[in-house]
Formats: sequence, structure tokens, C-alpha cells
Amino acid sequence: MTPLRVGIVGIGWWSNVLAETMQASDKLDLRAGYTRSAEKRAEFAGKFGCDAVDSYEALLARDDLNAVILTTPNSAHREGTEQAAKAGKHVFVEKPISNSLEDGRAMIEACDAAGVTLAVGHCYRRNGALRHMRHMIDTGELGRISMAEAFFGNDNGMKMKPGVWRTDPAEIPGGCLMQLGIHQIDNMLYLMGPVSEVSAYFNRLETEPEIEDVTAVLLRFESGSVGFVGSNYCSPLRFDLVTHGTKGNAFFELNTDGLRVQKTGELERKPVDYPPIDHLTAELEDFADAIAEGRPPEIGGREALAPLAIVLAAGRSSAEGRSVKLSELLPDA
Amino acid sequence: MTPLRVGIVGIGWWSNVLAETMQASDKLDLRAGYTRSAEKRAEFAGKFGCDAVDSYEALLARDDLNAVILTTPNSAHREGTEQAAKAGKHVFVEKPISNSLEDGRAMIEACDAAGVTLAVGHCYRRNGALRHMRHMIDTGELGRISMAEAFFGNDNGMKMKPGVWRTDPAEIPGGCLMQLGIHQIDNMLYLMGPVSEVSAYFNRLETEPEIEDVTAVLLRFESGSVGFVGSNYCSPLRFDLVTHGTKGNAFFELNTDGLRVQKTGELERKPVDYPPIDHLTAELEDFADAIAEGRPPEIGGREALAPLAIVLAAGRSSAEGRSVKLSELLPDA
Repeated sequence: MTPLRVGIVGIGWWSNVLAETMQASDKLDLRAGYTRSAEKRAEFAGKFGCDAVDSYEALLARDDLNAVILTTPNSAHREGTEQAAKAGKHVFVEKPISNSLEDGRAMIEACDAAGVTLAVGHCYRRNGALRHMRHMIDTGELGRISMAEAFFGNDNGMKMKPGVWRTDPAEIPGGCLMQLGIHQIDNMLYLMGPVSEVSAYFNRLETEPEIEDVTAVLLRFESGSVGFVGSNYCSPLRFDLVTHGTKGNAFFELNTDGLRVQKTGELERKPVDYPPIDHLTAELEDFADAIAEGRPPEIGGREALAPLAIVLAAGRSSAEGRSVKLSELLPDA
Repeated sequence: MTPLRVGIVGIGWWSNVLAETMQASDKLDLRAGYTRSAEKRAEFAGKFGCDAVDSYEALLARDDLNAVILTTPNSAHREGTEQAAKAGKHVFVEKPISNSLEDGRAMIEACDAAGVTLAVGHCYRRNGALRHMRHMIDTGELGRISMAEAFFGNDNGMKMKPGVWRTDPAEIPGGCLMQLGIHQIDNMLYLMGPVSEVSAYFNRLETEPEIEDVTAVLLRFESGSVGFVGSNYCSPLRFDLVTHGTKGNAFFELNTDGLRVQKTGELERKPVDYPPIDHLTAELEDFADAIAEGRPPEIGGREALAPLAIVLAAGRSSAEGRSVKLSELLPDA
């Protein structure tokens, strides 16, 4: 297979992480990078052996590129995607797909019209442990699942200063939930199926910029099960997910114990072996494979509307003090 | 100190647990037991070397008893307490104080009027690990606390058959939340302070009797922090509580790892030493000490109204699809 030839746009710490992932993969070939700062793009090009391009338009005009990866601010995803689609480039955009459903839908339409692939970076569901948890659910090993809880938080909010996009309330409706918790929302959708209803409490306790740094969300699933996703920006890094089944509880801790299972009649949580998968490699290679094979990627634009809608529904619930049906935001889903 | 001379009422598996606790304490002297079944009370009396009494009235008439412990069905707490108070006996009643705030308030009034002590069995906050977690919060070791999550569930619902009080919907509004989750609600109040608002989703998925076996509750605290309490009756026993602070996360797992702390800049959750406290011994000895010292117990009737009100507010929230302010149920709190 010919590697997918990629240009990356919006250079910061995250594009460095993705560039390292591409360097280690033979399915993606990072050829060019663009960001507004000439200094930053030169440094990036030097580090990863690719070209620094002077403008987004120049990058899109290059015939040697098949695809762009957008790690730009959330609110720039739509315009960047529409331009790329017009130029016939496939698009991988970081999560959230956008800050509004309107923008997300426009991105889907633009890529459909141009016949290019749109993929969205909800990476964690591809982690080997969560793939294996899903396998245990599908095979019945955990029995019927009644509840799931997840938490993703860190203390970045303690250091946040106004003036960069991640601290701009207009850029991040839902604050830490839009940036961190949305990953666990996608994991919940992956493991538990569609969500019908959302209740939430948001608050800002510690961050200087006026973004929510504490978000607690209840999910009612169409299956009848219930779930919780917590997120914050004001305590040490934690990424945990638990599912409760009639035959066992499964515990995933990303940074500590991996995957453990507690079976009926036992108290101990026993480590479980599973095929290791690097979730960033998996998501970028799925993007490349989808294009090569002419199939949709696992998380296309449509799949990415649900986690976005849940974040927005949670904000509405917190503001209005009521449970919000997802059909209010996604009437066609 | 002369031991408190106790009669226990409503003999079942839980009264056996409390009787064993009293046998190991020199502050309580179990003298008599009453339950409707003559066979059961004779067996209990033989096992614990106390008298089997023929009626509750006969037990209350005994001059050698200072106090009663009621492990009767929730709906019988009020009448049992009112009778005991009239007979001048101090009352220890299992959680919840009752199934309704009206009953709970009547119990408080009856004991106040008779000048006897009323204590309610919210035991887990006395566990050494939770005492130590509270100490770490009070001393600032964890920094300012933004969020907390707790779960208490087991798979008892899978075995439940109609016909006993724990499976009667009228006896257990809120199902597993009233029986199990209420313990974590009390722990939340202990660690995080008063609750202002509650949102919840309830469901029944697995139990044959028509009681809720899946309950997910969001708490908004007066401090601005937020919390989650999950409970179910359809997966293996789990009792966990996590608090998130600006300087550290604290993890409590009752049946597995005890208390662990993750400090800022670290991923590892390191075991923490704390003075061990048996929570059942502590709650019963607090009852005896409070009477001997003429002071209120840690959890009297008034303190027990808040967790009950939160369970009832959660049920209202789930049924009405809205956030419920606790002041709706406890206007004077």
C-alpha cells in the first residue's frame, strides 16, 4: 500500500504527538506542515523532516498531498475542512468535530459533496483495553451491562491563562467536558450504545479563564442502562472507566493498572491480558486504510455528531436544570 | 462505664452482624431480642446468650434495658421508635431513618419529647479510611476538592423474590439507592458538606420484584463542587469512593485496596496508612458514649434526614426529568 501523503495544519503540542505517531507508521507519510507562526512551522519541519508551507492555500494546492490533518482550534475546523474538501483532500480533524452541530453538519456535507473522507479523532475507544472490554461485552463474558462510569480530568486548568484558544469560552463550550470528557463520552457510546437523555451539573472553580472546569454528566442509554462521565481541570491526571455487568465488573485505568476484571462471587480485580493497541496509531491508520479501501472510517463526521451533541445537551441541562433528550439536538438520529 | 443494656428488634442477617459487634465491645451489653418468629428469636438468643422476648411490648417493659436497636423494615421504624421513646428507651435505628420525611420528623419529635437519644446507622463514614480522607481534606493535604464520585452496588437483585420486605416497592422507594447508595450519600455529606441540588436517572433492569436496581445520582454541593453516587443490584459487590483535589486524588476501595493517594505530578496511587476503625463498632459505641456523656450522637435523627431527602429528591428528579433542589423537601435545612 502506498502511504497516505499528509499535510498537518495547526502546529502545537498535539500535532507533535500525531507527527511522532506517523513517523512510526508505514501507512502515513507526513510531507508538510502549516501554522501561522513561521518560526513554529520551521521548527516543526526541521524536527519531522517535512516541508514548512507558507499558507494553508499553498498546502492545499500541493498535488503530492492526499490528505490534511487539522489540529486547529475547534472553531476553525469547519472552514479548514470546507477548504480542504474543495481542494479534493481527505480530512482528519481532531475532536470535537466542531463547537456546533451546524458546523459539524456543514463539514459532513462538504466532504460528501467532494467525495473525500472525513475522519474525527476520537482515539481512546481504539485502546487495546477498551477494545477488549467491548469484546467481553459482546461475547457475554460480563453478562448484561447495567451501568458504566468514566472520568477524565487533569490539572491543566490550574495553569491556564487567558489569551490562547483552549482558554477562550467561545472556543470551548462545555470547558473540560468538550476537551477531555468528550473522549469518555465517545467510549461510552462505543461500549454502551446510543444515548437518549442527558443531565448535568457544570461549574467553574479554579481556572482563571471563564471556562467550566468541573462537569458531571448522567447518561440514559437507549438500552435502559445508565452512565456517568465526570471531567475536571483541577486535579491530577486520571482516566478511568468501569462497566458493571451481571457476571462481572470491568475496570480500565489508562495510566495505572490497565484492564482488570472482577467476576461474580469474587472481590479481587484480576488483571486481564489483551492485544495491545496504540490508539493514536490505530486511528490514523484507520483513516489511511479507509481511504485506500474506499470504506468509511470508524469515526466519520456522522459518528462524531453524537458526542458533540451530548456535550451541548449537558451544557443545556446544567443551565436549565432539566434532563435534555438528545432528540432535541439530533432530531434525525 | 456501665455498658449500655440493649434489646434488639427485628432479627435477620443484619441483627446478627450487629450482635457480633456488641459481643466484642465492652460498651454494649446485648440482653434481649425480639422478632415475630418464635423460632428465629430462640435461635438468636441461644447464639448470643441473651433472652428471647415474646413481644415488643414485653421487651420495652423490661427495667434492665436502656436502649433498643431496631433492624426492622424501613416502614416500621417510626412506630417502633415512638413506642420505645414512650417507654423511655434510647433508640438506635438502621438507615434509612424511615421511608418518608414525615415519619423521620415524627421520630425526632418523639425522642426529643421523651428525652431519649435517637441514633441512625449510617456507619461507613466512620471507617478509618474515610475518617482519614476527611482528615486529609481538613488539613489541606488534598487541596481544594472539586469533585467526588462513589459507587455501592451488589448483585443481590439477581436473587430477589417478591414476598420479603426488601423486595417490596412500598418498603423501598428508590430501591438500591435507599438500601445501598444512601451509605455513599452520607459519606458524600460527611466529606463534601451540604447538598443543594440533585439530578438522577433510575431504572429496573434485572430484579423480579418491582424495585429500582440501577440508580445514578448527580449532587451539586453548596460549596460549588459536584458529585456522583451510583448504585445497583445487578453486578458484583463494589464499594468505591474517589475525591479530586487541587493537590491530589484520594481513592477508597472498601473491599480491595483500602485508601490510596495520587499527588500532583504523579500517576501512581500510593497506599496510605491510617488508624484502622471498625465502622460498626464505632457507630454502636458512639451511641453508647453519647448516652453516657449526655451529648448527641454523630448521626442523630436530624442528620439522617438529609441522606433520606436526597434519595427522595433523586426519585423525584428521575420521574420528573428535572434537577430537584433539596430545599423543596427540606425547607428548614
